[in-house]
Amino acid sequence: MSLRVLGVDPGLTRCGLGVVEVEGNRRATLVAVGVVGTVAGTALDARLLVISEAIDLWLDTHRPDVLAVERVFSQLNVSTVMGTAQASGVVIAAAARRGIPVALHTPTEVKAAVTGSGSANKDAVGKMVTKILRLDEMPKPADAADALALAITHAWRRGVAGPGPTAGSASRGAAPVSGLTPAQRLWAEAEARAKRGSY
Amino acid sequence: MSLRVLGVDPGLTRCGLGVVEVEGNRRATLVAVGVVGTVAGTALDARLLVISEAIDLWLDTHRPDVLAVERVFSQLNVSTVMGTAQASGVVIAAAARRGIPVALHTPTEVKAAVTGSGSANKDAVGKMVTKILRLDEMPKPADAADALALAITHAWRRGVAGPGPTAGSASRGAAPVSGLTPAQRLWAEAEARAKRGSY
Repeated sequence: MSLRVLGVDPGLTRCGLGVVEVEGNRRATLVAVGVVGTVAGTALDARLLVISEAIDLWLDTHRPDVLAVERVFSQLNVSTVMGTAQASGVVIAAAARRGIPVALHTPTEVKAAVTGSGSANKDAVGKMVTKILRLDEMPKPADAADALALAITHAWRRGVAGPGPTAGSASRGAAPVSGLTPAQRLWAEAEARAKRGSY
Repeated sequence: MSLRVLGVDPGLTRCGLGVVEVEGNRRATLVAVGVVGTVAGTALDARLLVISEAIDLWLDTHRPDVLAVERVFSQLNVSTVMGTAQASGVVIAAAARRGIPVALHTPTEVKAAVTGSGSANKDAVGKMVTKILRLDEMPKPADAADALALAITHAWRRGVAGPGPTAGSASRGAAPVSGLTPAQRLWAEAEARAKRGSY
């Protein structure tokens, strides 16, 4: 019994994508990882089309149980954050069109989940992702490692704290179980059994 | 010979959509106008799905030659602008998937084009849209009128200043004619003829 999560670190210049399969005992295995990039200066519609086609391909190829996306906040660089938000909109809508649930996680939540510290740097996150997934080397670029970290974070938070936050729930609390796909429900049950068991 | 423009004023709570048919002599006629809305508090993926399905329907029903979208800027209300950017990303990608060119216009450009003043208020824009399209009453809500104003602006700016800015051109200058659809090229030629003629 396992949960397949597609993590996406959205962006126009580099959009990280990573799929992990996470078992009820929290063991996470890499399924696929990659980055889709577009060149600054290219027309916005052409850039969003590349993101759109990439997410469609990843969703159809890997058929994840859930999509985990980084929650976008306004940053100092406003022009970048607009493009990031536009890319995340395209990614979220692609999952929604397929009926795949979407969960949003903040960078702090991701860092805390995989390293134990909400203020960890990108290198620390990458190293922990490498260790968790038992890889020989760190996924590059950082956007790819971040996408995997998002996917791991979603599965673990969901397993540890209940079904986990969905796109509609701003809090960290458990979302209604009715929002789960059959695979997620089975996984939640397996997780509950594991909690009563050996770890 | 005419140009059919779908104007979109993006937003999660209210997304205005308006289609106008503009002739070479600048005469603009209303084809369709509407608003798609989602309720704050609904899950983000569900909200973006509503926008996605609406824009797909409008593009397939009205088959515009070009999509004109309001250029999103950061505003004081950061939480709103993120949702607006996500909605605009979904809208732009939908056009790009169909090979429909996308043009971005700022609110100032739209106000200036339809009222003559870049600082006109929403009511002034709505009144001019009503007059330009020879309507009996002002399209409501303001998002619907804004979408029509965007569509008119694109056709007029394109006619007056050349092919007009596309998604990739930050300047107000003319974009390459090679980016035009056959219908746009014909319209540009008709416009050029009209300029040499009676007005």
